[in-house]
Amino acid sequence: MRLPAQLIRAKRDGEELADDEIRGLMEGITDGSIPDYQVSALLMAIFFRGLGDRELATWADAMVRSGDVLDLSAIRRPKVDKHSTGGVGDKISLPLAPAVAACGVAVPMVSGRGLGHTGGTLDKLEAIPGFRVDLPVERFARIVDEVGACLIGQTARIAPADKRLYALRDVTGTIESIPLIASSIMSKKLAEGIDGLVLDCKVGAGAFMKNLDDARALCRAIAAIGRAAGKRVTCVLTAMDAPIGTRIGNALEVVETIEILRGGGPADTRELTVVLGGEMLLLGGVVPDAAAGARRIAAALDDGSALEVFRKIVAAQGGDPRVCDDPAGILPRAAAETVIAAPAAGVVTAIDAEASGLAGVWLGAGRRTKEDAVDPAAGIVLAATVGTAVAAGAPLATLHHAPGLAADRIDAARRLVAGAFVVDPAALAAPPASRILEVLRGTMSAA
Amino acid sequence: MRLPAQLIRAKRDGEELADDEIRGLMEGITDGSIPDYQVSALLMAIFFRGLGDRELATWADAMVRSGDVLDLSAIRRPKVDKHSTGGVGDKISLPLAPAVAACGVAVPMVSGRGLGHTGGTLDKLEAIPGFRVDLPVERFARIVDEVGACLIGQTARIAPADKRLYALRDVTGTIESIPLIASSIMSKKLAEGIDGLVLDCKVGAGAFMKNLDDARALCRAIAAIGRAAGKRVTCVLTAMDAPIGTRIGNALEVVETIEILRGGGPADTRELTVVLGGEMLLLGGVVPDAAAGARRIAAALDDGSALEVFRKIVAAQGGDPRVCDDPAGILPRAAAETVIAAPAAGVVTAIDAEASGLAGVWLGAGRRTKEDAVDPAAGIVLAATVGTAVAAGAPLATLHHAPGLAADRIDAARRLVAGAFVVDPAALAAPPASRILEVLRGTMSAA
Repeated sequence: MRLPAQLIRAKRDGEELADDEIRGLMEGITDGSIPDYQVSALLMAIFFRGLGDRELATWADAMVRSGDVLDLSAIRRPKVDKHSTGGVGDKISLPLAPAVAACGVAVPMVSGRGLGHTGGTLDKLEAIPGFRVDLPVERFARIVDEVGACLIGQTARIAPADKRLYALRDVTGTIESIPLIASSIMSKKLAEGIDGLVLDCKVGAGAFMKNLDDARALCRAIAAIGRAAGKRVTCVLTAMDAPIGTRIGNALEVVETIEILRGGGPADTRELTVVLGGEMLLLGGVVPDAAAGARRIAAALDDGSALEVFRKIVAAQGGDPRVCDDPAGILPRAAAETVIAAPAAGVVTAIDAEASGLAGVWLGAGRRTKEDAVDPAAGIVLAATVGTAVAAGAPLATLHHAPGLAADRIDAARRLVAGAFVVDPAALAAPPASRILEVLRGTMSAA
Repeated sequence: MRLPAQLIRAKRDGEELADDEIRGLMEGITDGSIPDYQVSALLMAIFFRGLGDRELATWADAMVRSGDVLDLSAIRRPKVDKHSTGGVGDKISLPLAPAVAACGVAVPMVSGRGLGHTGGTLDKLEAIPGFRVDLPVERFARIVDEVGACLIGQTARIAPADKRLYALRDVTGTIESIPLIASSIMSKKLAEGIDGLVLDCKVGAGAFMKNLDDARALCRAIAAIGRAAGKRVTCVLTAMDAPIGTRIGNALEVVETIEILRGGGPADTRELTVVLGGEMLLLGGVVPDAAAGARRIAAALDDGSALEVFRKIVAAQGGDPRVCDDPAGILPRAAAETVIAAPAAGVVTAIDAEASGLAGVWLGAGRRTKEDAVDPAAGIVLAATVGTAVAAGAPLATLHHAPGLAADRIDAARRLVAGAFVVDPAALAAPPASRILEVLRGTMSAA
């Protein structure tokens, strides 16, 4: 058995590590017997050399085994989850989980918090008064079984190796590595006891993956890990240039969620819910193809059955279910608003998602560091989206914030949002483009 | 000013770091404010991306400035040192320093200890009863001034950044990096207050640099650092396949040193002393060319003037100067000997230096870890060298060791030495080949 320093050298020199070597490393990473400085050197070597398919599958599996794997075998329905690589205004999990559950596929969803310009599902759910995301695993399993879906945060016992690796990667320049990203995602998802996973891989200026090639490489790595673990994985590549929908910010995104669950809402938010949900139903084996799945999801949104499941989820997780009937009355509202007006007449041709997300952070909707508190009411409502014609002086967006928020933060947000909009006097108004770029199902070949 | 994590990313992505960024990093490395895990990730990024000439010069200069720089400006003679990248049986510093000093160039030499299969000058000197290598800097400077040469160990205040970096590199697979090796060597040498440096870059199976290309790259990096610091640097590439001379082990190498200083000794040990010394005299400006320098060194060995300087060095550093007259009587001697005999008649065509060095470690002459003690008397005396004809059963080498040494260690050494010799029944006897492969003087172009 080679020592950690020898394994670092071997990986540095492009050698494939043996399975027992990878498992030994992960044990040392988990129990702390391998010091940080060796772990970070190994991560940098992996950044440069990558991991082969077998290495990657073993690496991810060893991360899963570093902690607990939820046992959801008592739930008889197929269990499928969705993971998004992170977007701005990405509230899709909120309408998606109840819609999929309403169609007969269980959704045991373990989500994260927002950091930087992207939001987090847990923060959005916590905008609903009383909503608890820190449920014990047994309660989580019972809610999934009885209601069809439950959304909680990661527990300390899920993939502890990932926690250590992620914290180190964050400070050692080793975040942007396809195998490390893929194994981090999958270590948590494979610990959920699911049968299948739909990955919503965001692509574009506002996403972590800036181009299709990188996104496809990540999808191939995710699929390779899933395949080795015997899980079905579908990857949907979706555009992440402009923010999703019209509302950015935690309570604001719950408002948009309720619109979607009532059969309304912005076209792109609904499209993502319907398409991703259709793929989840296909993985769950309850529809013959994705198109049939999409139709089932659309029907569940339109006939109120998805909203009823959402109501049950909210109630089961301690939240106020009246949010489904009177979101404006139940959810916190920002006491102050600042309107951003169009500087000239024209058509909105682009809205920079990253700038919008950062503006949300300045307003209090997101976090700059993990320790920051969020203001659930803060955020941005877009009055115009890509393709819309606006008159000079017409509102482009409204900033929602606390009345006492520091003027320099409001100003920073205002400048970011004003700068995020491209208004072209010569462009023609157009209906919104589809966000679905590509769907990768089944046996993708891992490059 | 970018944060360390950003600088790691920048280097990872092949960016050149600014001088103030490199100096800031080195300050953090020296004062410990940059944690080990960031330093090791940075080192691995440098392993893959390298350092440009300007970056390398700044990196090395910042390492020098992390500690004290000896002020030898009171010494009027030119001051030139030699550094070897490490060989087996490499006792050249011992005859070289007094020979060069005898020719009018001062040699302020800060040396290291042996580790692994290569020996260290300090261990060899300490085989002389009473010899002290831990002199205060002021005494070191005075001995260099009065005697012409002094050989001490690195103090804690010389290049402390190198100490931290080296300890981390050792355990994070980042030893084998040309810029990191070059800056480590030069950070210590530039702190000596020298005018010039001759680098003896060992090349071959028993050396760190296995081939000429790697060795030339190291020499170019060393020269670039030296040039930026205003120091003259000459690199001599020398063959390191078979052990140097006929004696390996601390006291045994002092015996060979005295032979050389009396105008005798093995041809290769004398050749290295004469050639490296000639280059040092040329750098010191006391001869018109290297050939004239070599002749001066040879004369100093032959006329006893080098031996007289050695006697003064030994006396000044607390050792017993009678070692110059009666080495066998003064130096510790191993009480037990084990002879390795030739299995068949033939000509010795190769002796594996690394195996010989490792055998020395088993016998107690070297260290497996920094904490090991060495037995000054232990080692190996070669009875045959490359090119010599031997009869079947004739001695190839004699192992010197303590009588109580564990049988398995003696056996390990015996097998290593027996296996190190290649005796070819069909080969013809030949005079020893020159070890000098290449001399790189002045303005080498840094690739």
